Parts: sequence; C-alpha cells; structure tokens
Amino acid sequence: MTIMCQLLGMNCATPTDITFSFSGFAERGGRTDHHADGWGIAFFEDKGCRLFIDHESAVTSPIAQLVKNYPIKSRNVIAHIRKATQGAVELENCHPFMRELWGRHWIFAHNGTLKDYNPPLNGLYQPVGTTDSEQAFCFLMQGLRARFDRQAPADLGQVFEVLLELVPGIKRHGEFNFLLSNGQGLLAHCTSKLWYVVRGWPFREAHLADMDMSIDFSQSTMPQDRVAVIATQPLTDNEEWTQFESGELILFEKGLPTRKAVTGRA
Amino acid sequence: MTIMCQLLGMNCATPTDITFSFSGFAERGGRTDHHADGWGIAFFEDKGCRLFIDHESAVTSPIAQLVKNYPIKSRNVIAHIRKATQGAVELENCHPFMRELWGRHWIFAHNGTLKDYNPPLNGLYQPVGTTDSEQAFCFLMQGLRARFDRQAPADLGQVFEVLLELVPGIKRHGEFNFLLSNGQGLLAHCTSKLWYVVRGWPFREAHLADMDMSIDFSQSTMPQDRVAVIATQPLTDNEEWTQFESGELILFEKGLPTRKAVTGRA
Repeated sequence: MTIMCQLLGMNCATPTDITFSFSGFAERGGRTDHHADGWGIAFFEDKGCRLFIDHESAVTSPIAQLVKNYPIKSRNVIAHIRKATQGAVELENCHPFMRELWGRHWIFAHNGTLKDYNPPLNGLYQPVGTTDSEQAFCFLMQGLRARFDRQAPADLGQVFEVLLELVPGIKRHGEFNFLLSNGQGLLAHCTSKLWYVVRGWPFREAHLADMDMSIDFSQSTMPQDRVAVIATQPLTDNEEWTQFESGELILFEKGLPTRKAVTGRA
Repeated sequence: MTIMCQLLGMNCATPTDITFSFSGFAERGGRTDHHADGWGIAFFEDKGCRLFIDHESAVTSPIAQLVKNYPIKSRNVIAHIRKATQGAVELENCHPFMRELWGRHWIFAHNGTLKDYNPPLNGLYQPVGTTDSEQAFCFLMQGLRARFDRQAPADLGQVFEVLLELVPGIKRHGEFNFLLSNGQGLLAHCTSKLWYVVRGWPFREAHLADMDMSIDFSQSTMPQDRVAVIATQPLTDNEEWTQFESGELILFEKGLPTRKAVTGRA
C-alpha cells in the first residue's frame, strides 16, 4: 500500500455515475489504506461543476456517504483522498482545487510531494491553502492564460501541448501525478504511479479490489457508452488496467485516450 | 410571497451551524414558495469553503437533506434558492458563485433581474453560466482587483468603500439585492427586499415562519456567541427583524453590522 494521496478520475462518452468506483476508492480513505486526512470529488455536468470537499475521512464522512448513494451523472470526475505530507489538515488544503479560466471551471488534483517549490506567481491565481499542489495548479493556470491570453484554445489538444512545456519544470521538484479537467476532457500525468482502464461495449462484470462488491455493467449500458477510469492503483481485480509510463501525459476524451506523450523528453 | 429568488446569509462571532435557518429557508424551495429552479449554499471554514449547488428543488434534493442534517460550523454562510428569470435551469447558473481573489475564495449570490446588463469584462473573471448575476459578480471581482491590484486590502471596510462606488452603475439595470463574502465577513446590499436579525446573549427561543419548528438557542450558546442572519424575508415570526433601506449596503463582522451606507446617494 502506498502512503501518499490517491487519485481517481473518470472520463466518459455519455454521462455516467461513478458510485461503484468511488465506493472502492473511498475504502482507501481510512479502512484499507492510510489516506484519512480528508478527501474531495468534483463532478462536471456540462459547464457546471459540483465540488465536494471534506476534512473527515472518506470512510466516515456523511458527504462521502451521500456521494456513494446519490448517482450524479457526469462526463468528467476527479476525486482525491489525502494523506497530508505538506500543509495542515484544513479544508482549504483538500483537493481537488477549482479555478475559472476562459469562462469554464478547471479542476485539479495532485498526488506527490514537490520539494522547494516556489513558482513565480503573478497574482492572477493565488493559492488559498498552503499546499505545494495548489501552487502548481495556480502556476499551470497562469501558464495557460499567458499562452492563449483571453481567447480559449479551440480544444484540449492545444492545452495538452502547453502542459508538455510547463510540466517538466514542475516535476523536477518531485512526484507530480495529477488530474486536470475543464469538463471537456481529462488530462492525466504520471511521474510514479497511475493506471487506467477503458470500459466499452459489450460491457462486462467488474469486481472491486478493495471490497467484495461487483457490478455487471452490461445490464445498464448502451453501445454508445464508453468510460475511462484513471486511478493511482487499479480499483478492480478482474479487468485489464494499463499502467502509465513515467512522465506520461494522456488526454482522455469521450472515454478514450486521444493524445499521449512523455513530458521532458528531448 | 415573492416570485423571485431568495437569499439567506449568516455571519457569526463563533463558528455556528445554520441547520435551523436553512430548514425554514429550504421550505421556500418548492413547498411554501415558488423557488424550485435549483438552490445552493456555501460555508466558509476559515479560508476553506464548501459550496453545494443543485438544480433540483431544495425541498426534494438529497444534498439539501444532507445540509439540513449535517451541522457544518461556519462563521460565514451564503445560500440561495432560485426562480429562473434569466438563464436556463442549468447547474452552471445556480448561485452562489465562487471565484478566487488575493488567495481567498469569494462567494456571491444575487436576487433580482438586471436588464440590458453587459458590463465591460476584461477577461480576468468570465461567467461560466448565462446569468446576469454572474456577470455582475465578475464585474465586482474585476473592479476590486483593479482597485487594489495584487495586494489584498487590509480589511473588508476597504472593500465596502469600493462597493459603494461600483454598485450604483449596476443597480441602474434593475433589482440588485446581493450577498458577498470572502470568509472574513459578509457584505449585504438591498435595492428592494432584505432583512436581518442579530441574535446575542442571552439567546432565546426562535420559531420558524415557514414550518412549525422552534429552537431554544439559550440551551446551546455561550456569552461570546453572536449571529447575524440576513434573508429576503424574515425567517422567524417571533423575533425582531430589521428591514434594509433601499440602496443600503451593510458590512457584517463577528455577528454585528459594522458599516452601513446607502449606495448612489450624492
């Protein structure tokens, strides 16, 4: 078992609820793992975004209970369970973090620790809490804004290209596994540990690794459905998960990886 | 009964839960009133902020049930029940809205309709949804940032002064009752309908106007506690509520009105 934070992301072709994956993931927030210093989850519904954060353990939190039982349908979800390595256990230090850029909400969660990291922030985005993670997020937002100015890029492929330039300077400071979304797709970067699985038609049964719970997705899915789930460790024990390469950045759109590259390679 | 949105705010000397007031307020989201087009509530816990929004009615929403039953202790709370007058019933149009400025979250909710309102936004803050309200919020954030640049003002008294300058240009477009907070205090402005009550030691019993529910605050309070509740209509029927003057802006700090002025008076 890892002793750091855990990430969970979902990117889908059609609005999908994440209650099954979140149930297994939340077990790691205190029961099957050591990540009991708060948690959070963000759901995009088109441009709208719901962000739930809590400094209680994801196992005991009443808000986590709500999320497990209330099937919010979303195309992009980012969740995080925190083990405090930098920053006190305060609400303002709980991931994911949210900022607005180009009239869209952006959501970010990070796993890892950045040492001696003090990026040159110009004030357009300032951290509210004291984590290295929120500093990195503010720096990425600032960098994206600087590159495209007031006009949003046409698609996340262009954002992908800018991240390839911005990420190497950050990951020199330590582990930088992160998930980033603006509701149109999901960007995932790995320096040490991140996996994904793509579920598509015909769907089949999946069994959680962290608790004895199965779901037969073939009973509730349609041919146009497709779901990519990204996690620090595989959440199920009977599906084929793909491990990210070290340094790999992947853009997920409509439930599929659409762009892949390794950051910082000459 | 009004046919527009309803606002609820709370500003306290010590962290206080709002479950009692919210229970009465939520009744207006579909049962005792016509505000069934979504709702939202934001709780500050020091600098951290939890924002719950939902496009279901506040009467039936599972998230509203959670908020009614989960006593989150906060010094500043802003809630809103929406009757759509401008903008579709989408999640991104649900109040309150959140933005970051000077390393703090800012929360804004508005009651009223602004007609022909297209403020000159420079791109630093852009609306995610399509409401007149979020446009006004972005304009206020832009104006505050422009006035103080990168350095946060020393206190909300300085923000109060800038709002006195910015608000008259907005309220020319229509009703502009709003609540604004950054977690340090709460600013409330009224053009048509807003009331407040201050509860202090010794506390006594309060009875909700919208449902037969009472609470004896003297059983659970201490001498240092003090709570200001601000609402579109008085929430209780056995307390003395003070009505805002038309155009009045009030700053609440530690459960008390500390600054009052009328906007747009020469």
